[in-house]
Amino acid sequence: MSRDKSFTPEWIDTPPPEKTYRSIFKWGAPDRVKHPSHGFYRAVKESLGLSDDDFARKTSTGEEKISQEIAPAMAAEDLAALAEIVGEKNVSTDTFSRLKFSSGKAMEDLLKLREHVIENIADVVVHPRDREDVKKIVALCHARKIPVNVYGGGSSVTLGLECVRGGVSLAMNTHMNRIIEFNETNQTITVEPGIMGPAYEEALNNAPQKFGTGHRYTGGHFPQSFEHSSVGGWVVTLSAGQSSTYYGDAYHLVISQEYVTPVGSFKTLAYPGTATGPKVNDIMKGSEGCFGVLVAVTMKIFRYFPDNRQPFSYILPDWESAVNAARNICQGEFGLPSILRISDPEETDVAMKMFGISGSVLDRLMIFRGHIPGKRCLLIGQADGEKNFAQQVKKNSKKICKNYNGMYLTSYPMNKWMHGRFSDPYMREDLNDYGIIIDTLESAVTWDNLHHLHQGVRSYIKNHPHTICMTHASHFYRQGTNLYFIFIRRSMPTRDFLTFQRGIIDQIEKHGGSLSHHHGVGKMMAPWMEKHLGKEQMAVLQALKNHFDPNRIMNPGGTLGL
Amino acid sequence: MSRDKSFTPEWIDTPPPEKTYRSIFKWGAPDRVKHPSHGFYRAVKESLGLSDDDFARKTSTGEEKISQEIAPAMAAEDLAALAEIVGEKNVSTDTFSRLKFSSGKAMEDLLKLREHVIENIADVVVHPRDREDVKKIVALCHARKIPVNVYGGGSSVTLGLECVRGGVSLAMNTHMNRIIEFNETNQTITVEPGIMGPAYEEALNNAPQKFGTGHRYTGGHFPQSFEHSSVGGWVVTLSAGQSSTYYGDAYHLVISQEYVTPVGSFKTLAYPGTATGPKVNDIMKGSEGCFGVLVAVTMKIFRYFPDNRQPFSYILPDWESAVNAARNICQGEFGLPSILRISDPEETDVAMKMFGISGSVLDRLMIFRGHIPGKRCLLIGQADGEKNFAQQVKKNSKKICKNYNGMYLTSYPMNKWMHGRFSDPYMREDLNDYGIIIDTLESAVTWDNLHHLHQGVRSYIKNHPHTICMTHASHFYRQGTNLYFIFIRRSMPTRDFLTFQRGIIDQIEKHGGSLSHHHGVGKMMAPWMEKHLGKEQMAVLQALKNHFDPNRIMNPGGTLGL
Repeated sequence: MSRDKSFTPEWIDTPPPEKTYRSIFKWGAPDRVKHPSHGFYRAVKESLGLSDDDFARKTSTGEEKISQEIAPAMAAEDLAALAEIVGEKNVSTDTFSRLKFSSGKAMEDLLKLREHVIENIADVVVHPRDREDVKKIVALCHARKIPVNVYGGGSSVTLGLECVRGGVSLAMNTHMNRIIEFNETNQTITVEPGIMGPAYEEALNNAPQKFGTGHRYTGGHFPQSFEHSSVGGWVVTLSAGQSSTYYGDAYHLVISQEYVTPVGSFKTLAYPGTATGPKVNDIMKGSEGCFGVLVAVTMKIFRYFPDNRQPFSYILPDWESAVNAARNICQGEFGLPSILRISDPEETDVAMKMFGISGSVLDRLMIFRGHIPGKRCLLIGQADGEKNFAQQVKKNSKKICKNYNGMYLTSYPMNKWMHGRFSDPYMREDLNDYGIIIDTLESAVTWDNLHHLHQGVRSYIKNHPHTICMTHASHFYRQGTNLYFIFIRRSMPTRDFLTFQRGIIDQIEKHGGSLSHHHGVGKMMAPWMEKHLGKEQMAVLQALKNHFDPNRIMNPGGTLGL
Repeated sequence: MSRDKSFTPEWIDTPPPEKTYRSIFKWGAPDRVKHPSHGFYRAVKESLGLSDDDFARKTSTGEEKISQEIAPAMAAEDLAALAEIVGEKNVSTDTFSRLKFSSGKAMEDLLKLREHVIENIADVVVHPRDREDVKKIVALCHARKIPVNVYGGGSSVTLGLECVRGGVSLAMNTHMNRIIEFNETNQTITVEPGIMGPAYEEALNNAPQKFGTGHRYTGGHFPQSFEHSSVGGWVVTLSAGQSSTYYGDAYHLVISQEYVTPVGSFKTLAYPGTATGPKVNDIMKGSEGCFGVLVAVTMKIFRYFPDNRQPFSYILPDWESAVNAARNICQGEFGLPSILRISDPEETDVAMKMFGISGSVLDRLMIFRGHIPGKRCLLIGQADGEKNFAQQVKKNSKKICKNYNGMYLTSYPMNKWMHGRFSDPYMREDLNDYGIIIDTLESAVTWDNLHHLHQGVRSYIKNHPHTICMTHASHFYRQGTNLYFIFIRRSMPTRDFLTFQRGIIDQIEKHGGSLSHHHGVGKMMAPWMEKHLGKEQMAVLQALKNHFDPNRIMNPGGTLGL
């Protein structure tokens, strides 16, 4: 049944038609695609026990227009009051807009949209123009007990954006995306929360031209969603970027935040270090819109030295060596690489196919040296910063990899990965079009529990036949790292998918991983929160919720388990 | 009136007699002293307009026995119930013990004790043996509404230990000073909170012998109170150590904490990074015993490379150059020195006298090169970590100092400072014996506000004639630093001292400094907290207080302004 070797599925190349389901769930820029490479396509086919025939016809495309119109379940006077605040043109009540601003990018969102399920949508989308608008909106909604759901870049994969109680979806990235202050002396930038990753980074990289600064800067924060997520979103969901090992997570990058809450507005202290009691700045980080609306944020920035980059790649004999090498790199006290990433054997094999290394001369050399597919593990990294510093970090990292019998692969795999690092999510639509499910879950873990968690989650996933499970660690600390699980399976009913996916979360929790390393909690992880934190600590979050939001209007319906 | 050149005041050399006021207020080890050097003595005399005659007779020594016995204001059945929990021998009700475990090391404490003022003392000192004892004590006190005051190492300089509502003083360092777990893989150590600095660091330095680890470790935390403060105290007051620029503040070092609160006990998650909502671990840091009792803490540790130390010292032409050099060192992305410290002109001059440099050949060389007393500023530092890393950090730091017209002073001043870094507080008693007041206040500050804060506070202090005001910055971040003010004045009534000292806090607050960088808040800074944080943020801390401590028994009476 297999077709000729050159068979390629008819991946969709055209931007989604306007006002269609696809235009909502498609990842990223409407006119941009990234199709699976032939190597990746073949790997998926083989692992899932599929043939080219399974890619002859799409199972769904979501290219249908949203034809239903559902009336908002909000009193006309409330709608009028909101329009009064922001102006008519900053309020939308059409179903398409409401669905769009109530949807994230979880597999679950995508499946439902492909099935034309419209549920948990806001009654109205409101685009505030500035903090004063937000203050008036929150005051109004607090007084009238109208739910307020906050929407940043729209890339949530944890059901953070579904408006389960209806109400307002507050679109922060329409207008509130400005730079408020660039402070070179303090090395900080203050922005409105809706500014998107590329605009933010571009301003920093080009600060000498834009702000007359003496140096170029970087924000150092590059989550895979970089191009389609907002700075405010990074902060309220505790995002981690691909260079977090050096620059820190969003958690570490926030100097100060300004919030509008139902019980008042405030700006947290902007000192880099203080001893004035528990820090309200910390209490608000990761609050996912449950306590109030972030209206401004001051972030740390860093000198930018693009010419000093020192990429490196190693193949290590097995997963244990890769983990130990990474751990020793992080614990060596010689500075940290900005990017560090180790892939388990299954991910390594897929990567070798994606990067076109499988079957090459390099592949044969690796095998000759004992680095066997199915066992060998890829480690890629990049050092940044001052020139000698970056060189020394690379040099020390290489020494450690050698100690673990690593073989240097030049910078080629690192550069390949770098090239595709933001665009891989585009492939999801292509696979989904043929009914193939691809999803991810991630967890924080201490070094001493890494293998237990990896094996536990992996064996649960692999117990389902014809399933790909690729795992990597990509955010490092002296005390541990994260594990990022990518799983690919054949088409199944949404209900079955949810059972399977929730089963993985169960396994993460049972094997001592954290419920989330950098995707946040949303409503997806919420049911596990009390078990994970314990009831005493959940009660602390509840006490804060009760304080900030007595009428329970902020992102209501279970976000963070509140 | 001046005596012969070799006159030296009769500093007290003997340990304080038992059960005296001096035995409570004296800094550090009873049998240890450090007297002012002749250079320092001369500097104090000159600046304060004193002569040797003023040092002919002590104004007070506090060597009087505490003769009063004050009956505890606690019901006999409550005392019995406490003794039932911990055993008779772990309960003290004598006035000396109660005063001792209700006193800190603020100048205010010292003045009052010299004046035999006994106030704000606990009714009973209880020495819990383990967390189970603490659970029972807190449950009992919660039920019976008995205040619980937590006592760590006793070095608080912010009135953190005064038991203003009486009740229990919980002495954590008597028994609860054990190491619970050493985890080399995770690079963490879990300890009971009462373990003191030297025992903690010594265990880490000698981990191969003590725990069979592969490497030596350091905690990286060296506050000036290192020898007389507890790990738990560091955490709950947000301490910063002299190597914080590389290793971070106590805030950054805490991975997980276990608390006993009136509404339940819990251990925070022990992941190095998570995205599971606001972190309860952060909410508890800096809570100064107001929410509950810390009973165990897991801290980050670091590889220890004593042989790789790279000390350096520079003299810079003025304060602005010193600040800019330090800022550029911190913003250079070449790794950070562990120790970095810049002294303003007045502190530099005193340091030159203390270190014996004034009038030396080196001094003349400095002056010849344009580094003039009264203007020049000392910068000292030390790089740690892996060998090449430490060398590169030093090299880059030196390059920056040179750019600011710094003159290299070899490692001599750094080593001199290093030698006395924990012992300078011993000189306080010597000066106090002759009625001279020496005290300190510190503040966090952003780079762009540093000079404004420095000048504002300094001019307030210097407006008082015959007053020394030395300032340094010693904890660095890319975004700012701290300012540490040391002021020395002639004897004055306690009331006048308090007016003067509170006036400085006023100036810190008015000039945009934080109320505390690393001394905590205690009851001293508490009156400024609402103004500093704003009422919305104070309300957040109040909400947490209400949650954890509905009967308001934990460190009651104003700590943190609660």
